[in-house]
Amino acid sequence: MGIVTLISDFGTFYPAVMKAVILRIAPETIVIDITHAISSQNVREGAFILRETVKYFPEGTTHVAVVDPTVGTSRQALVIGAGGQYLVGPDNGLLIPAARELGDFEVMRIKAPARSSTFHGRDIFAPMGAHISLGRLPNLEPAVTFADLELQDPQASERSIVGTVLYVDRFGNCVTNISGELLVQRSGYGSRHVLNGAVSALFVRTYDEVERGDLLMTVGSFDFVELSVNQGNAAAQLNLKLGDKVRLDRL
Amino acid sequence: MGIVTLISDFGTFYPAVMKAVILRIAPETIVIDITHAISSQNVREGAFILRETVKYFPEGTTHVAVVDPTVGTSRQALVIGAGGQYLVGPDNGLLIPAARELGDFEVMRIKAPARSSTFHGRDIFAPMGAHISLGRLPNLEPAVTFADLELQDPQASERSIVGTVLYVDRFGNCVTNISGELLVQRSGYGSRHVLNGAVSALFVRTYDEVERGDLLMTVGSFDFVELSVNQGNAAAQLNLKLGDKVRLDRL
Amino acid sequence: MGIVTLISDFGTFYPAVMKAVILRIAPETIVIDITHAISSQNVREGAFILRETVKYFPEGTTHVAVVDPTVGTSRQALVIGAGGQYLVGPDNGLLIPAARELGDFEVMRIKAPARSSTFHGRDIFAPMGAHISLGRLPNLEPAVTFADLELQDPQASERSIVGTVLYVDRFGNCVTNISGELLVQRSGYGSRHVLNGAVSALFVRTYDEVERGDLLMTVGSFDFVELSVNQGNAAAQLNLKLGDKVRLDRL
Repeated sequence: MGIVTLISDFGTFYPAVMKAVILRIAPETIVIDITHAISSQNVREGAFILRETVKYFPEGTTHVAVVDPTVGTSRQALVIGAGGQYLVGPDNGLLIPAARELGDFEVMRIKAPARSSTFHGRDIFAPMGAHISLGRLPNLEPAVTFADLELQDPQASERSIVGTVLYVDRFGNCVTNISGELLVQRSGYGSRHVLNGAVSALFVRTYDEVERGDLLMTVGSFDFVELSVNQGNAAAQLNLKLGDKVRLDRL
Repeated sequence: MGIVTLISDFGTFYPAVMKAVILRIAPETIVIDITHAISSQNVREGAFILRETVKYFPEGTTHVAVVDPTVGTSRQALVIGAGGQYLVGPDNGLLIPAARELGDFEVMRIKAPARSSTFHGRDIFAPMGAHISLGRLPNLEPAVTFADLELQDPQASERSIVGTVLYVDRFGNCVTNISGELLVQRSGYGSRHVLNGAVSALFVRTYDEVERGDLLMTVGSFDFVELSVNQGNAAAQLNLKLGDKVRLDRL
Repeated sequence: MGIVTLISDFGTFYPAVMKAVILRIAPETIVIDITHAISSQNVREGAFILRETVKYFPEGTTHVAVVDPTVGTSRQALVIGAGGQYLVGPDNGLLIPAARELGDFEVMRIKAPARSSTFHGRDIFAPMGAHISLGRLPNLEPAVTFADLELQDPQASERSIVGTVLYVDRFGNCVTNISGELLVQRSGYGSRHVLNGAVSALFVRTYDEVERGDLLMTVGSFDFVELSVNQGNAAAQLNLKLGDKVRLDRL
């Protein structure tokens, strides 16, 4: 049995239509929702979450991703083979960070996709994902070009690191693109840093090393530095949102 | 393996109980959530989303729908066979538009359902859905009457069309009950219309044919005319909600 | 095929990583979400919903529960066998009310769990759930102690019952820990009670026995007394939230 994952900004009930289309073609395929709560048309957020998720899935998994502000234009529809998995979605950069994460990758385009002005998720991407889960790669040709997307790397000087907020979770924790490894090597646990020139936070292993309500930095589940408040909301307290810069100056 | 879909206004965790009940009876059945975020007790919204979803599922699928303001009264519990699929739920109109969409339909009622004052989803509808997914139709008799529900059709005169907002999606797009075919025939793409006597919108194929922030009308994924704002929220801008009338006057 | 359920306060997309981990180990296992919308770090809410859900699942089901304010400390990781089902999660009381509900139970701890400072859901609990669904119980030893949690029982005197709000659903219905059986025996349907010394509510079988907008008490789907407003929001009207006391004085 193959696995198809779905990730989109569709919210409710459109994903069920995609599942219906998949099960018609591939009744034994297991369909897993990554999330359908990506912020509307936020390709960068979708690309980040897809990249951080794909590596946990087994070889042979097909990921169908639809965050697609340019649906209806002439942008290509892509299938990317990467590290034994497949990525299916629009040619707007959404799939590329995940493809890089999985290893060497090969970008194909869907030839003359069936006409569908506004719902490629249902009419193009879901059927393609279903076919791939059955071991078929129909109607593809090499893509000559594709839209790239780099999730910006952090910049480090002697006492400072400047990164970006990649994701704000539902607890208000701000996941940055600064790797835990980098901060451990530079400063180590127990070091204290000024955030954006304003407030200071301790770099700790676990929340309970600081008082309730205190700012802290931990290495989160995806190996990135996260800004948090013990039993509080860091995004609200620091006024941070997706895409904002974060500067850490060691005290 | 059979498929059972679930649609309700239950929100979180009650649906898991329905799945538990189904898997006890039919361990191999695939259970798909359509949505559990129907507005509380909004039979009309549930009926619309169910109608727009069922046609994508394969023959033999059973849809269990629970939006049920009259639970605990003497209203009947129905099983409807329609176009090779089955619909299970309360007799309040919820199932009827979907049944009509699927073709000729036959309405049955559940005989003397097991007593359950408030959770028919768990005690009556989920078990029935599980049995049907196994090819059984136990404990049914023809329904002599049933509550009908018509999702109101739009009215068109020479230069005007009056429809209804059927659904507001999470981006604020207002899905109307005006078919794309009707608007294409009457006016064609590129025509401009006054909405509710106040503001004007262009009828386009894709969002990027108008400026960012401009109102537009497209034919959406369900073949209905949708009112949208390019990268904005049409429901907020037009102050529209589910059930509101929308009048289009051609300019 | 085994069943693994998931319940957590993770919100979106982390649950997909847990499913990926489970499917790698146990590709045939069925994974069911109970909910991932438990209030952040609210062990008591998670314990209540888990307790009210487990009994509907078939024998052999494994429930993986992660609401874990003390992740990263030395708290134990538990596997509990109870009534033919299994519960997997942190040693903070989360699993205990469900274990009691299922019958006699046996508490084991995971020996020397793999190091993971912040994501035990992915690295410890999900893999363990997958192994158990395959009939394996690896790497366990008896737990000498464990953190208990009692969901407080209501107190009844001659004309009064004092209970607690266990859960507020999305309609604002307040589910209390007062059993329907107790209120039926003491007062019977049709009795009227003063709530918290302020307003009165009728105890009825179904909503439509009171006027629209009136307070009422019913026996809900989980056999607990619920405070509701017919087509309104009881939590808002009574200013009640999870954990608040509710006193019923018979009129």
